[in-house]
Amino acid sequence: MSANTFGKLFALTTFGESHGPAIGGVIDGCPPNISIDLKEIQRQLDRRKPGQSKIVTQRKESDTVEFLSGMVHGVTTGAPIGFIIRNENQKSTDYEHLQEAFRPNHADFTYQKKYGIRDVSGGGRSSARETACRVLAGAIAKQVLKDISIHTFVSQVGTIALEKPYQELEFDQIEENLVRCPDIETAIRMEQYIQEIKKQGDTVGGVITCVVKNVPVGLGEPIYQKLHAQLANAMMSINAVKGFEYGDGFASATKKGSEHNDLFLADDTTKTNHSGGIQGGISNGMDIYFRVAFKPVATILQKQTSINQSGEEIILEGKGRHDPCVVPRAVPIVEAMTAMVLLDASLWNKIY
Amino acid sequence: MSANTFGKLFALTTFGESHGPAIGGVIDGCPPNISIDLKEIQRQLDRRKPGQSKIVTQRKESDTVEFLSGMVHGVTTGAPIGFIIRNENQKSTDYEHLQEAFRPNHADFTYQKKYGIRDVSGGGRSSARETACRVLAGAIAKQVLKDISIHTFVSQVGTIALEKPYQELEFDQIEENLVRCPDIETAIRMEQYIQEIKKQGDTVGGVITCVVKNVPVGLGEPIYQKLHAQLANAMMSINAVKGFEYGDGFASATKKGSEHNDLFLADDTTKTNHSGGIQGGISNGMDIYFRVAFKPVATILQKQTSINQSGEEIILEGKGRHDPCVVPRAVPIVEAMTAMVLLDASLWNKIY
Amino acid sequence: MSANTFGKLFALTTFGESHGPAIGGVIDGCPPNISIDLKEIQRQLDRRKPGQSKIVTQRKESDTVEFLSGMVHGVTTGAPIGFIIRNENQKSTDYEHLQEAFRPNHADFTYQKKYGIRDVSGGGRSSARETACRVLAGAIAKQVLKDISIHTFVSQVGTIALEKPYQELEFDQIEENLVRCPDIETAIRMEQYIQEIKKQGDTVGGVITCVVKNVPVGLGEPIYQKLHAQLANAMMSINAVKGFEYGDGFASATKKGSEHNDLFLADDTTKTNHSGGIQGGISNGMDIYFRVAFKPVATILQKQTSINQSGEEIILEGKGRHDPCVVPRAVPIVEAMTAMVLLDASLWNKIY
Amino acid sequence: MSANTFGKLFALTTFGESHGPAIGGVIDGCPPNISIDLKEIQRQLDRRKPGQSKIVTQRKESDTVEFLSGMVHGVTTGAPIGFIIRNENQKSTDYEHLQEAFRPNHADFTYQKKYGIRDVSGGGRSSARETACRVLAGAIAKQVLKDISIHTFVSQVGTIALEKPYQELEFDQIEENLVRCPDIETAIRMEQYIQEIKKQGDTVGGVITCVVKNVPVGLGEPIYQKLHAQLANAMMSINAVKGFEYGDGFASATKKGSEHNDLFLADDTTKTNHSGGIQGGISNGMDIYFRVAFKPVATILQKQTSINQSGEEIILEGKGRHDPCVVPRAVPIVEAMTAMVLLDASLWNKIY
Repeated sequence: MSANTFGKLFALTTFGESHGPAIGGVIDGCPPNISIDLKEIQRQLDRRKPGQSKIVTQRKESDTVEFLSGMVHGVTTGAPIGFIIRNENQKSTDYEHLQEAFRPNHADFTYQKKYGIRDVSGGGRSSARETACRVLAGAIAKQVLKDISIHTFVSQVGTIALEKPYQELEFDQIEENLVRCPDIETAIRMEQYIQEIKKQGDTVGGVITCVVKNVPVGLGEPIYQKLHAQLANAMMSINAVKGFEYGDGFASATKKGSEHNDLFLADDTTKTNHSGGIQGGISNGMDIYFRVAFKPVATILQKQTSINQSGEEIILEGKGRHDPCVVPRAVPIVEAMTAMVLLDASLWNKIY
Repeated sequence: MSANTFGKLFALTTFGESHGPAIGGVIDGCPPNISIDLKEIQRQLDRRKPGQSKIVTQRKESDTVEFLSGMVHGVTTGAPIGFIIRNENQKSTDYEHLQEAFRPNHADFTYQKKYGIRDVSGGGRSSARETACRVLAGAIAKQVLKDISIHTFVSQVGTIALEKPYQELEFDQIEENLVRCPDIETAIRMEQYIQEIKKQGDTVGGVITCVVKNVPVGLGEPIYQKLHAQLANAMMSINAVKGFEYGDGFASATKKGSEHNDLFLADDTTKTNHSGGIQGGISNGMDIYFRVAFKPVATILQKQTSINQSGEEIILEGKGRHDPCVVPRAVPIVEAMTAMVLLDASLWNKIY
Repeated sequence: MSANTFGKLFALTTFGESHGPAIGGVIDGCPPNISIDLKEIQRQLDRRKPGQSKIVTQRKESDTVEFLSGMVHGVTTGAPIGFIIRNENQKSTDYEHLQEAFRPNHADFTYQKKYGIRDVSGGGRSSARETACRVLAGAIAKQVLKDISIHTFVSQVGTIALEKPYQELEFDQIEENLVRCPDIETAIRMEQYIQEIKKQGDTVGGVITCVVKNVPVGLGEPIYQKLHAQLANAMMSINAVKGFEYGDGFASATKKGSEHNDLFLADDTTKTNHSGGIQGGISNGMDIYFRVAFKPVATILQKQTSINQSGEEIILEGKGRHDPCVVPRAVPIVEAMTAMVLLDASLWNKIY
Repeated sequence: MSANTFGKLFALTTFGESHGPAIGGVIDGCPPNISIDLKEIQRQLDRRKPGQSKIVTQRKESDTVEFLSGMVHGVTTGAPIGFIIRNENQKSTDYEHLQEAFRPNHADFTYQKKYGIRDVSGGGRSSARETACRVLAGAIAKQVLKDISIHTFVSQVGTIALEKPYQELEFDQIEENLVRCPDIETAIRMEQYIQEIKKQGDTVGGVITCVVKNVPVGLGEPIYQKLHAQLANAMMSINAVKGFEYGDGFASATKKGSEHNDLFLADDTTKTNHSGGIQGGISNGMDIYFRVAFKPVATILQKQTSINQSGEEIILEGKGRHDPCVVPRAVPIVEAMTAMVLLDASLWNKIY
């Protein structure tokens, strides 16, 4: 029941702090005889890593993975896949002034109170750097899943929202702009807004939408392991996430049954898909789609009052290289978590 | 990793179909030497059960629990608590016309496809009747938690939303009206709307808000067992739930960091609480609050097209006694799941 | 991680004390579409129950199971199977004199110290009555496994040991005598010895041997879920068990590699089977066989000194109807646990 | 439910093959604020590593651990402890002739059949090299447990057995001889016998005894997580183990209840300790002691017939540097597994 393990049959266990020697993990339960495309894994890691563009943090991390086990000539053997990603460019001195400080909306205070000790540099274990391991494991999961396709994109930055239904979007446009929004006109507005926010030394939140196609019928376990409950759990475990909804989500609260029900057609599909591809916790073969809300990044380059471990009031001012908006870089993370949930559910479904 | 077990250290395992002889379960990990108020448990079960008022289903179920183990003279011994609730009034004939039908937005189709067999009567295992076991286990969890207080209420029915911040509400008004909305004026409007919907043979969705006070600092485990991820998982596992958000939730996506950050005060509290009482997955001592979106009940008393197991088109028309709006009866379920998550987190936190 | 759950994918969760209203449990993960022979389950329960013959306890318990869920017309649906077995004939007064006593080699002392409270009657949760639930779940597991055959018998009572190799035994003789030893001559000697011990108001230990045939290659998971480690764990969880060995077991410690190695034949079998059908934690297709040692029953009808909860010395004298030797009745329990382990391993093996 | 994770609250997850770049793992659930003596950990690793003396394999491995996370200045933070041990001196060419061979009593055959692929070099994942990770985690567990003392020694090599009761042994003599037997006279005979066996190109089995002192009352969870069942599971998961017994073990099968019962004294201890310190699955405060049987090492330097993956008969002859008897080097492994089980049980016991 380890807190640092995600998944049941396909299970990722991770370790590592932002400014320690390395982060890494163990993937247990990966099916054998899968040829892994290691370059594709690195490509996914590169999508997440900092320093990619002018609208994300300029921090440089090479995020080069070293695989230590579980494959022979790039083919999985069924043995656990161990890996590490060395940390580089750890300017621990950046954090010296924070040794005693509790930064607002960070985990400094809660870690200190829970454990009576914490690794101060870069947020230690609570740093989003840990998500690199998720992206890696998700990239492997995607290669196992093969037929299922996961499309993830930024659908909102601040109040700038992509209003088009996902059916009208061209997913191959996602990677064509810095924000990872498949609607170019909206993407430009989002990008401009992020730049403006950055100039203010401020940050802003956003929403990521994920659409999964070609999901077979039958994934997910009732009662307490419903597929959407697993997805919610997965998404809410990502740093800065504040909300999850699937299908019509919160909007379904405003609807009548006669409007919301998805009527069956003779080919086992449904006329509409308000439900979001899941009934009774089990995939029904229609597209699964959901939205994930992210709060604004906590570290701002403005002065804020706070307290230190002694309970004294202090003034904090963010330094260094931080993201003005986290959602562009969070796209591959949402995708990876989705892949892991779906692979775990697929493996579980094999026992029937 | 059973699909029918909820929780890790305080673990509820349940069984039972809507129209079988009984539902029931086992609560494992309840701390010893707790005097259990059995009447209070029955009172909580009564809050959930059908037939309580004119705005919920008129189906009558007595929901009387029989405890089979785990207590001596009403005091827990640390042994597992087994219990059953006999099903009564099972009009299985109500479901004869559904033997072959796949009802829209029910789990008929997905269960049939996943398992190749299903218990047709009343939805079988996928029936919300299972939630009675959750309410029971949650009622026990609440008695163990003691100091923590959980306030749960209906904050939206269709488009009628309670706009007041929770700090202005009087929680002792929740049980004073049929809708379980603590604002009497709003409650009346909601009630009228539900009655109107009912007359149309239709149903409507809604939102439940939950506010938890007096949570100690330190509950929740990073990285993959964040307290809010556990709450999300718990809520999304309840029938008909489509969305979860905590703190500012989806609204935080529109905010700037300078607006959203909760500044610390010298007494370890924060000036504001946009975060919803959790940082880095660990409770910070402030109020935890979250919102849960429910879709409209799938069974409507109107004609709908559908298909049967042979893939033939059929016409369905809901019969019997169904809820026009599920949220009033779901209030104790949300409360129970919250209590179970918090107790589990409390027990886990003891190991440090 | 519940203490009262056994198994991972095929998981039995149990509850109940010896003298409470009922014992029972939930079987989660049973594959769907299995026709269950309910009479065969009752027959297995009857094999375990007390009062069957002159060499076991004369206590009468009907051990009638009531199934509450998980089947439609006797066919499993994939939903959890809930069941209860009512306790009858609970002479709690038998235990009044034990209210404060710590009986030697019972769990009275450890339960009291661990939980600060205990259910005194009949040993409460620590009673072997709990094993009825194991026998039931094992009987279902055996019906799912079909091809695998499990042969379990008494191979030693006190110092009377069955010396023949299992290959020379006729397993269909096991149920033909009271001791459940397939060698009739040895069985008679064992029976006489048990009767003698009983007259002395004493008890005696014994050994059960289990032989499993037709196990497919591939069951068991390295590293920490080796098949024999799971079997050891299962057997050691049965009341009164003190030892487990498989293959040559403790005798292999005395052997040389050149004597102990099982050489492969061209048909993937091995010439000998010192290993006991498992290599590297994974079944190799040869017979799996193992031995389980049971201590003598703790309750003897002789005077013994002990202490009570206040730490005062007392004199105890066993009363009532107790087994002079537990192994004949433990045969179906060992069999049931074996079946559960093998089914769990079979399901797990399906994910590859 | 990962196969490569050991433990529940104190959980070790490992990876790595014998001849890959590294082995390693993640320790999750280690309590915070423990000062770890890193030299002591290396000392324990050195006790296990090959090449220490003339009676063990002459293979040289430096087994130097690199810690990657979970500590600040040598003090645990509650975050997972990641570590790797680089493999050195990997003469993969040693195994070229085995590419297709199934060695008798190794896991070659079962891994190949289960996964359809295997890492041939040095046994891949099934190599005992993996136990280095266990020794490391156990060394940390011992530092957390502090008061509990674990004494582990070789009590049998082939037919040479240490007959003295453990109470008469001087545990500080264990490390004073190559065999790790605390009775010097017996140790010399064992050592001579191992040398003789080695000259024959053969191997021999043995038994390790473990005695645990100062265990608090209350460790272990009924029903399916009995302390001795957890110990059995732990020991049986070690390579080459064939049997486990605790307390009087198999000898208790021959005893009468009147001989075997441990009578209580007024100070909560018992006059005798046939039970081995555990009642009802829970420690009773007396010494816990148990014995673990190891088969002879499978690789012998003699010619043996076998088959290859194509089912053709072949002649094998062990080469290289192998242990003639595994028990001296297995002592720290048994010790480590014991420490992990006890720490896990200690943490679990905190929730009451």
